[in-house]
Order: sequence, then structure tokens, then C-alpha cells
Amino acid sequence: MLPDAPRRGFPNAEFESRTARAQALMAEQNFAGLLLMNEPEVRYFTGFQTPFWQSPTRPWFLFVPAEGKPVAVIPEIGAALMRRSWLDDIRCWSAPRPEDDGIGLLTELLSPLATQGARLGVLKGHETSLRMPLGDWERLVAALPGLQIGDATGLVQGLRMVKSAAEIEKLVHICAIGSASFARVPEFVVEGQPLEDVFRAFRREALAQGADDVPYLVGAADRGGYADCISPPDRRPLSRRDVLMLDTGCVWDGYYCDFDRNWAIGKAGDAARRAYDVLWRATEAGLAAARPGNTCRDLFRAMSQVIAEIDTSGGDVGRLGHGLGMQLTEQPSLMAGEATVLREGMVLTLEPSLSYGDGLMMVHEENIVITADGARLLTRRAAPELPVLS
Amino acid sequence: MLPDAPRRGFPNAEFESRTARAQALMAEQNFAGLLLMNEPEVRYFTGFQTPFWQSPTRPWFLFVPAEGKPVAVIPEIGAALMRRSWLDDIRCWSAPRPEDDGIGLLTELLSPLATQGARLGVLKGHETSLRMPLGDWERLVAALPGLQIGDATGLVQGLRMVKSAAEIEKLVHICAIGSASFARVPEFVVEGQPLEDVFRAFRREALAQGADDVPYLVGAADRGGYADCISPPDRRPLSRRDVLMLDTGCVWDGYYCDFDRNWAIGKAGDAARRAYDVLWRATEAGLAAARPGNTCRDLFRAMSQVIAEIDTSGGDVGRLGHGLGMQLTEQPSLMAGEATVLREGMVLTLEPSLSYGDGLMMVHEENIVITADGARLLTRRAAPELPVLS
Repeated sequence: MLPDAPRRGFPNAEFESRTARAQALMAEQNFAGLLLMNEPEVRYFTGFQTPFWQSPTRPWFLFVPAEGKPVAVIPEIGAALMRRSWLDDIRCWSAPRPEDDGIGLLTELLSPLATQGARLGVLKGHETSLRMPLGDWERLVAALPGLQIGDATGLVQGLRMVKSAAEIEKLVHICAIGSASFARVPEFVVEGQPLEDVFRAFRREALAQGADDVPYLVGAADRGGYADCISPPDRRPLSRRDVLMLDTGCVWDGYYCDFDRNWAIGKAGDAARRAYDVLWRATEAGLAAARPGNTCRDLFRAMSQVIAEIDTSGGDVGRLGHGLGMQLTEQPSLMAGEATVLREGMVLTLEPSLSYGDGLMMVHEENIVITADGARLLTRRAAPELPVLS
Repeated sequence: MLPDAPRRGFPNAEFESRTARAQALMAEQNFAGLLLMNEPEVRYFTGFQTPFWQSPTRPWFLFVPAEGKPVAVIPEIGAALMRRSWLDDIRCWSAPRPEDDGIGLLTELLSPLATQGARLGVLKGHETSLRMPLGDWERLVAALPGLQIGDATGLVQGLRMVKSAAEIEKLVHICAIGSASFARVPEFVVEGQPLEDVFRAFRREALAQGADDVPYLVGAADRGGYADCISPPDRRPLSRRDVLMLDTGCVWDGYYCDFDRNWAIGKAGDAARRAYDVLWRATEAGLAAARPGNTCRDLFRAMSQVIAEIDTSGGDVGRLGHGLGMQLTEQPSLMAGEATVLREGMVLTLEPSLSYGDGLMMVHEENIVITADGARLLTRRAAPELPVLS
């Protein structure tokens, strides 16, 4: 296991500062409060961390007022854990209670805003979802006549995009764990092994290296290259001239790495070697362009100009990287049309991909943080030539 | 690793049969189509399985028409995998495309229903969420004047509650993997070990036993008993007289087990032994009551009557078990007010819990399938007395 894990959790000052920054933006954008209900946002403002979100049974709510600490409206089963946070006002009900799963408590909490005709911010935009029953949402809105509902997606995503020093420490740590795990692949992956067993061995290795969990693992292996990068593994044995790709999101203290590596089994074919070389250089171009002041579009262009040596389609995956943090994928997206300006403290994946040969694809991925001097790699840089597992 | 894993996936006949049953109910309930967007429902009707759902970036949609095969409306990145399913009509866009993330394609698909003033079923009820941006949902509804929207939660949950023979095979397998993993705990858990390391060792063991992944693991350990069952693990070393609990949701081929085990470290205190005995007998009462024709309420009562020997509060967790399958927790809930009738093929957790001592709690959990003859245990039954790790 890697030494020197940073401290878990955050000091209360981190949550105070996040809340103060949110409230300053809320004042500018005329939000009297924010109603949040997804895991990353509730955790962002409280530190509340539990795998219990995996159960779809219970909704969880956090209200960020214009001033003062957030208010939690949560199932009783989470009360003990939430009381360890910096919050003072924690309102609970015995969930599940389908006839009133927190809606009564929320109505009471938000009624003063409705009476004033104030504006409540919720997340309605790209990359968000409504983590509560749609019927309950409609009932809540109906119970609060006069309440204006505004979209606070940009506000919240804008805050979360720029990571604090303490967040970056956690991301450095999990990326180091991911890198150490990939470095060991030549020791546990062999010709003849089914991809399913490769996945299991990789997960075990990442845990041994200190990951809390390996929630995301995709990959592929096929002769000369792979055609798809999101399918579950099968029992086909790894064979000579396969290209193997593994892409992992490991987690430490609630923060993700998200990167991949490619290998040839036994021997690398020319087409795969060439695709690899192009993607490696596309990543270099991305690293050089990842400076404060450049936009996501600049970063996309820098990479796609190199990719165009082989593939001019622009790809169908829609983007060449994304933000990274409490979620495997976060804002911003590295896309042709994305004008978001890169800022110090943004943590990004550079993820150039291309199509080649007869329906094959290849993906590379590294994780970086934007510093005043440009990109700082969080991952151990992939080898410049397609590595061969013998 | 356990031998005799069943075959992965399902024959097409399984999806045909699920769709036919859905369409029969849709006819009865006057739904001209269903619009689904969550992972378990899309998988239920197509077999589409990928960890890619963990990324919040892209929405995925499935339309189940009144007749014929479902239609997928999905990001291009999933096209290759979806083409391996039994579907014929797969409509894709290059996502992410925030300005039109599938909404144009959905509008085109659903326009005939809107023109007819037909009724579209969506999931709006308990245990559901809207896995797409709320703003996009509002835009879609506005683009389809005349379309009636109805709540199809009961229809879909009712179908999913009763498992097929092929689903039960997968659940048997993953419960066996979970049981084998718990059986090995005395070999890798020792006094002095931090709970965080216990978690990591348990995950590695479950993978070695053949789990595809261990997405859910919670637990606790403290002197005389634990006070909370959803917190992440800490670095406090396991100490003599601790009660340790681990509760896991391991996955195989997309199906979950969900059960826990308790142990005393070194020596068990009297209060913990008594709580354990009561919960063990509550589970026995649950097993006896878990027969077709009884209701969830009957099952709840059977267990709570035994629990009342120590704890008459009824607990704050709100229920004493739940459905199990493609999700860690599914319908139905074993609650005081739940009238759902038990049917053959339902897979359930029996999860009696109680409060005792000074703010302590204990939870037991087993997984069962309802057969014509009553409950069949999928998990290896917990020891009748609190086991001691020495």
C-alpha cells in the first residue's frame, strides 16, 4: 500500500468557505436559497459521506440559505452521521414513508420563501438529475405557491469545478494509487486469462494499493484493437496480438481518479502502435495547452488537431475529457463548443480517443490539475510506445 | 472461487416475456407507452449492462410501446453495446450535447402519442428518480402538447418484484459468494486491525470468491455494540469486547446480495449476546411467516413481535427488510403499513434491527426467495449465537 495518505475528511473551515462562496454567488444571482438532493452536492456542503446513497429508497435534502449554515432534511437513519458534521439544524423523518417522504418537512422549511415570492435555486441543467420522485417534486411545488424556481446548475457546478488544496491532496493520492495499480498489471495479467479475471485481479490490486473502492472499471481486449469501451468483461481468453485497455475510477475518501492504460498482448500490430503514438502525442498537446486562461475548446482543439492525423471524424464520444472530483465525470467538458475558461485548481481528465482500422477505437487518459504554470500530471504518464505484455 | 457460476445474461425470450407482461398491464391501465430512463429499468427490458451509468453526464432512454419491441434512444457511445441486445430500433446522438441531449429524438418518437392525446407512463412514485435534467424534462413535456403523463411506478415495480428462474439463479450465486466471504472473516479479521483495513480485506475476499464487484459495504465496530450502521470505516483498531458488523451488497452479473453478519471481538458482552439472540429469533419468525399469501405487513409483524422483547419503539429505520435484485434495495418494503401480498419468486431481505443499551443498535439480515412452500434461504444462515473472533 502507498504510504502517506492525507487526512480523511475536511476541517469545518472548508465547509464554511464553500458555503460563503455559494452565498456570495446566490446574492449576485438573486437566489434566496438552494435546495440540493444529490450525493456530491450534499457532501460538498456538509462532508456527509455514506454508501447508503446506493439505495434508491430514501431521498436526502440539503437547503443552503442566503445566510448561515445549511439545513439538512434527511431520513432518521442518517441522523447520527449527519450530527458529526458542522451543521446545527438537522430535521429528520422515519423513512421510508411513501405518503410523506420529507415533503412535509421541506414545505415547512421553504414556506417563508414562498410567502415572500423569493427565488429558490435547484439543479435543472446539464449533468444533473432529480434525485427524488417526480411526483413528490410536483407535490412540493404545488404546496409552495408563490415560490419561484430558478436553475442554479451553473452556480453549483462553477463552485465545484475549482478544487481546494485539500481536495487536490485527495485527488493526488487516489491518482497515485491508480498509477501504482496499473504499474503492477504486467505482474498479474497473462495471455490466456479471461478479461473477467483481469478485472477481478485489477480491483484486488487497487484495493491492496490503498483504494477504498474501485466503483468504475471498464475495458476491452480484442485482436488488433477493441471496438467498444463500455461493455462488461467476458470470458474470452487474452490472446497474442490483442490490444487490452483498462479504464478505472478508483476512490479514496470520496474522490475519484479516472484514467486508462493500453497494452498489447505478446506483440503489437502496426495500426495499434500508430494509433497509440497519435493519442500519446495528442495528450502531450493537451498537456501543453492546459493553462489558466485557455478555454476547454482550446484544449479540445489542441488534442483533436493531432488526432486528425488518423481520424478526422471528431469522434462520436462527444468530448475529449472532463472534470474530475467527487464524481467520475464532472463539469467542464472538453468539447468543441465549450467556452469555459481554465482556472487554477481545476482537475481534469485529458481523454483523446480515435477510430482506426475496421471499426476499432483507442482511448488514452491522464488526470491533471491546472496550476499557474500549466498542467501538473496527477497520474504517472503512460509509456510513449504501446507497452507489450509478454 | 465458487464453482458453477450460472450463464451470464439472459436469452432473448426473457426480454420478450418481460415486455409482453408489461404490455398486457399497459393495456389494462391505459398506457400507450412507457418512457424509462433509469439503469435497472433499461436493463430489465434490454439486458443493457455497463458501469457507464456511473457517469452523470449522459441520459439514456428506453421507450416501451404498446406493441412490439422497445426503442432505445441513447448516446452514441452505447450504440455498439445496445446493438448486441434484442432491440432493432436504436436511435443515437453524439452526447454530451447540452443544447439537445436526446430531447429532439424523444420528441420525434413521442409526437404520435401526443397527437392522439395518449397516455405515457413514467416513473413518478416512491423509490424512483428522474435521471435526466429537470429542465430537459420540462422542455420535453412542453414540446408534446396533448400528451398525458401517468405514473407507471406500480406497474413497473410490480413486474420487477417477482423474479424469473434465471434471475433467481443469479441471486443464488451472488448470495453464495457473500456467504463464503463472510465465512472467511475469522481468517482475516483480527484484534488491533482498523475497520478501514477490515473493509478492504473483505472486498478483496469477495472478489476472490467470484463477485464481480462489491459496490456496497458498510459496517461498524465499537465497544459493547455499535451506534450507527451507515458511516464509512475509520482507523480505530478493533478492540476486545467490540461488536463488529459488516453489511455487504456484492454483485454478480448485475444482481445483488444484501446481508450482514455480526461478531464479537475476543469476548461478547451480555447485552450484545441478548440483542443478537432476539434478532436471530426475529429472523426465524420472519422465515416462518414468509409464505405466498401473507403480506409484507404480516412479515413485519412477525419480526417486530420478537424484537419487542427488547425494543418496543418499532425502530427509526422505517422497515425490517425489502426487495432485492438488480438494486441493493427494491420494492416491496417490509413495513407496518405495507399491504403487498407475497408471491412466489419474490426475493427479499429479512432485516430485523433493534436499539438497546445506551444508544446502541444491532441489525441482522438474510436473503430469501418466496417459494410455494415458504421461504428458501439464499444466504447461509447466521450462527444462532453471537460468534466470537479470537
